[in-house]
Amino acid sequence: MSQPIRVTIWNEYVHELKDDTVRSIYPDGIHKQLATGISEFGDFSIRTATLKEPNHGLGPEILDQTDTLIWWGHAAHNQVADETARLVQEKVLDGMGFIGLHSAHFSKPFKLLMGTSCGLKWREADEKERLWNLQPNHPIMDGIGDYIEIKETEMYGERFDIPTPDELLMMSWFQGGEVFRSVCTWSRGYGRVVYVRPGHETLPIYHNKEILRLVANSASWAKRRVSINAQECVNVKKALEVVPSPTKKHIL
Amino acid sequence: MSQPIRVTIWNEYVHELKDDTVRSIYPDGIHKQLATGISEFGDFSIRTATLKEPNHGLGPEILDQTDTLIWWGHAAHNQVADETARLVQEKVLDGMGFIGLHSAHFSKPFKLLMGTSCGLKWREADEKERLWNLQPNHPIMDGIGDYIEIKETEMYGERFDIPTPDELLMMSWFQGGEVFRSVCTWSRGYGRVVYVRPGHETLPIYHNKEILRLVANSASWAKRRVSINAQECVNVKKALEVVPSPTKKHIL
Amino acid sequence: MSQPIRVTIWNEYVHELKDDTVRSIYPDGIHKQLATGISEFGDFSIRTATLKEPNHGLGPEILDQTDTLIWWGHAAHNQVADETARLVQEKVLDGMGFIGLHSAHFSKPFKLLMGTSCGLKWREADEKERLWNLQPNHPIMDGIGDYIEIKETEMYGERFDIPTPDELLMMSWFQGGEVFRSVCTWSRGYGRVVYVRPGHETLPIYHNKEILRLVANSASWAKRRVSINAQECVNVKKALEVVPSPTKKHIL
Amino acid sequence: MSQPIRVTIWNEYVHELKDDTVRSIYPDGIHKQLATGISEFGDFSIRTATLKEPNHGLGPEILDQTDTLIWWGHAAHNQVADETARLVQEKVLDGMGFIGLHSAHFSKPFKLLMGTSCGLKWREADEKERLWNLQPNHPIMDGIGDYIEIKETEMYGERFDIPTPDELLMMSWFQGGEVFRSVCTWSRGYGRVVYVRPGHETLPIYHNKEILRLVANSASWAKRRVSINAQECVNVKKALEVVPSPTKKHIL
Repeated sequence: MSQPIRVTIWNEYVHELKDDTVRSIYPDGIHKQLATGISEFGDFSIRTATLKEPNHGLGPEILDQTDTLIWWGHAAHNQVADETARLVQEKVLDGMGFIGLHSAHFSKPFKLLMGTSCGLKWREADEKERLWNLQPNHPIMDGIGDYIEIKETEMYGERFDIPTPDELLMMSWFQGGEVFRSVCTWSRGYGRVVYVRPGHETLPIYHNKEILRLVANSASWAKRRVSINAQECVNVKKALEVVPSPTKKHIL
Repeated sequence: MSQPIRVTIWNEYVHELKDDTVRSIYPDGIHKQLATGISEFGDFSIRTATLKEPNHGLGPEILDQTDTLIWWGHAAHNQVADETARLVQEKVLDGMGFIGLHSAHFSKPFKLLMGTSCGLKWREADEKERLWNLQPNHPIMDGIGDYIEIKETEMYGERFDIPTPDELLMMSWFQGGEVFRSVCTWSRGYGRVVYVRPGHETLPIYHNKEILRLVANSASWAKRRVSINAQECVNVKKALEVVPSPTKKHIL
Repeated sequence: MSQPIRVTIWNEYVHELKDDTVRSIYPDGIHKQLATGISEFGDFSIRTATLKEPNHGLGPEILDQTDTLIWWGHAAHNQVADETARLVQEKVLDGMGFIGLHSAHFSKPFKLLMGTSCGLKWREADEKERLWNLQPNHPIMDGIGDYIEIKETEMYGERFDIPTPDELLMMSWFQGGEVFRSVCTWSRGYGRVVYVRPGHETLPIYHNKEILRLVANSASWAKRRVSINAQECVNVKKALEVVPSPTKKHIL
Repeated sequence: MSQPIRVTIWNEYVHELKDDTVRSIYPDGIHKQLATGISEFGDFSIRTATLKEPNHGLGPEILDQTDTLIWWGHAAHNQVADETARLVQEKVLDGMGFIGLHSAHFSKPFKLLMGTSCGLKWREADEKERLWNLQPNHPIMDGIGDYIEIKETEMYGERFDIPTPDELLMMSWFQGGEVFRSVCTWSRGYGRVVYVRPGHETLPIYHNKEILRLVANSASWAKRRVSINAQECVNVKKALEVVPSPTKKHIL
C-alpha cells in the first residue's frame, strides 16, 4: 500500500480577515478551501499553516515531514521572514515539492527558486480565461480535457519573467488580448516545483473542480521522491579509477 | 560596423598574491591572462575588476556598460558583498551576459541566478579530462572539434546541482571515473548565463587556446541584446481588447 | 568580412497561378515576395525554387550550397517527391538550416524532421492575431517588440502536435479564443529548424515588415555552421584510453 | 485498484538462434529474459513478439492494447517492414509508450520518432561503464543510486545524433574515454519515448537487477495515459469567441 502524500498548504491568510468579499468566498480561508477541495483528487494527508503562526507555521520538522508544500500569498509577501523563505528553498532542494499558486509568483521562496524577477503584466477586469492543454500525456494533466474555461478571472500576461520551464503544460488565452504560461514545472535540487496560475482572492476559482484537480495533480506529481540529502560537496579522495596524484591536497 | 563587445572580467585575485605556484602560472592574475587570451577569438573591449577594489570594482555604471561579465572566484566567495551579488543578478536580469568559470559554480551571483545549491563532487589529482562536443551547430562551439583534451585537471563530478540547462553543449569525461555537464547555458530575465567548467588556479588551463576560444565564444554569445528594462510589473489598465470591467481596482 | 548567407526559398507556387486573390497579393509568387522582403533584414544571397522545376528545383548540389532553406507549401504537399523530402531531411542533418512557414507544418520535410503528426486546429475567419515575445534576448527576436499584431489572419490553434521545442520564442493569441506556439526552434543533426507560423496565401502577411524581419532573423540564426559530415557511425578501433579487449570483433 | 500495465516486448530474436555465446546468456531469447526480469519491478501484464511472427507480431489490435512497447533490435533492423515501423510510430503518437533498448537506436521506429540519423560511436572491448544519475527525483530513477557500474560493456560514444532530449536522466562514463547520454526521454504526440542504452547480446546485462529496474521504471513511466485520439486536424467552424468572418471557406 502506498502512503498518503503529506501536503502542507500555506496561506498568508490576510485578505480573508479584512475583506468581506474575500471572506464570503473563502469563509475559512483559502487554505481550508483548498484542503477540502483537493482531497477529492488524490490520497493526501493535509495540514495547513499561516503567516501569523510562530515561524509562519513552517519549522524544519514540519517541512521535513511535508512531501509537497502548496503556497498562497499576495498581500504580505514581505512579511514572510527571509529565514523562512531560505528554509523553504533549502527543503525544496532536499526533495520537498513546491506548488506556487497564482500571486505566489512574487513570493519570496518562489523567487529564490527561480532566480529571476518573476514580473508579469496584470489586469483585474473580470474577463474570460481559457487554459489550453499542451501536454495531455503528463500526469498533471490527468483528467483535464482540451481546455479549461474560467468565466471571470484576473489577467496575467507575458512576458512572465521566469526561467524557461522544464515543462510547459498549459497556456492561457485572455479576453483582453494576452497569453500566459500558466502551468509550468521545474526541477530544483532534489525537489520539483510547479507554478499554477489560476486563482484569485475575490473570485471563486478554488471552488472550480477542474482547477482543484490541477492543484491536486500538481501536488501528487511534485511529491518528495528521495529521502537522501546528497547536496553537500564530496571531495572524492578515493577515486573510482586510478588517477595520477591520488593524495594531492586542494590549496585552500 | 558592429561595435566591440564590452567585456568585464572579474577575479577575486587572491591565490595569485599568496601562492607561488599560482603566481608562476598567472603572474598578472587570472583576469589579465584571460583578457589577453580571449582577445584572439572575438572583437572585445575588455576591462577587469577585482575583489579589493571599491565595490569590488563593480558599481552599477560599470555593469550597465558591460555586455558580458566573466566571473572567476574560488577562495573568497564569502568576501563578496551580498549587495554586489544582488546587483550582478539584477543586471543580468536586465540583459547583461554572465559567464561563470570553474569554481564560480559556488559564487554568490551564480547561486542567486540558479536558485540551487550548485554542489558537486571534486578531486584534485592531476588527472585527464576530455570534453565532448554535444552540439556542434551552436555558436559557442564555433571552431571546437569533436572533443577537447586537457592533460591535467581538477575533477568536477555529477550530480552537479543546477537547474536543467536550457542547452547542454559539452560533457566531460574524467580519468578517475566521473562525468560532468561542463558547458551549459540558461536564460535569466533578459540576460544569458553560461557555465564553463575548465580552469584551475594551479594549472595552466587558461593558456590553452581551445579553452580560451570557448570562453571567448561564450562571452560573444551571451552579450547584452536588449537595452530596455521591462522587468517591472505592468498593470494593463488600457486593455488591448474590450474587457467586462475595465476600471476595476485591485484590492491591495 | 563575413560572407552573405546563402538562402534558398522554396514555394510550391500553386495558389498564385490559379487564384486571382492570391495573385493580386503575390503577383510573382510568395517566393519572390519573400526574397525581396527579407533582403532588408539580413545579408543574404537568395535563390528560389518551385515544385514544377526538375527535382522541384532542389538537387543535392543546390542544397549543399544552401545555408538556410525556407519552405512554403500548402495545397501540394503530396506532390513533393518522397525522395526530395528525404534529401532535404538529410541535408538538414548535415547542417543546412530549415525554416518552415505557416502551412509548411504539414510539409513532408518538416514532418520527417519532427517525427510527429504536426496536426493542429485551424479556422479562416479574418480574425486578429497577436504574437507575444517570450524571449527578447534571442537573436531571432532582434528588433521585435513586446508583441506583433496582425489585423486579419488565419487561426492555428493548440494542441499543435510537435515535439517540445528546444526554444519557444513567440506565442499567439487569437480573437476567436485559441493560443498557438508560433515561433519555435529545434536542433536536428547538425542543422537548425525554425517554425514561423504567420503567413497566408490570401492575406498580405508577407508584406508586413515585422513578419519579414522574423523570417529574416530566423534564416540568419539557422544558417549552416558546420561543414563536416560526421553523421556516420564510427567504430572506434583505436581507443582513446587503454581498454581490456581492444581487438574484439563485433559479432555482426 | 490500478490495472497492470500492458507491456509488449519486441525482439528481433536473431542472434539467440545463430550464436552460441548469445544463446548461452539468453537461452529463451532476450525478450523472455526481459519479461521475467522486469516483473520484479512493476505490476505488468507482459506479452512478447518477434520478427518472424506474422506482421512481426505487431498488428494494430496488439498495439492498441499495449501501454508500453519495449524494442530490442540489432542485426535485422532492415527486415522490419516499413509499414510496421510506421504503424508503431502512429501508435506512439496515439499514446503508446516506446522504450528503445541499446542498439534500437538504429531501429526504424526509433528513427522515425526522432527525425535524426541516431548515429553514434561504438567499440566492443569488454570495457567498464558507469552510468551517473543526473535527476534522482525522476520516477525512472526510483531505487537507482548515485551511479550504476557495469563491469563489461560495449561502448557507445557521443556525439549521439538525437534531438535534444526533453529529459536527460543518466550519462555514461566509459573506460576507453567516451561519454554518452544513456537514459533520455521525449514526448511524441500523446506518447512517451525513453531510450535506455545498457544492454548487449553477448553480455549478461539484462541479468543485472539495476538495469532491469531501469527498464521496468521506464516502461511504467511511459505507459499510455490518454485513450483519445485527437491527432486529426480540426477546422474549428464554431469559434469559441466572436470572429469577423465565421463562415469563410478555405480556398483549398
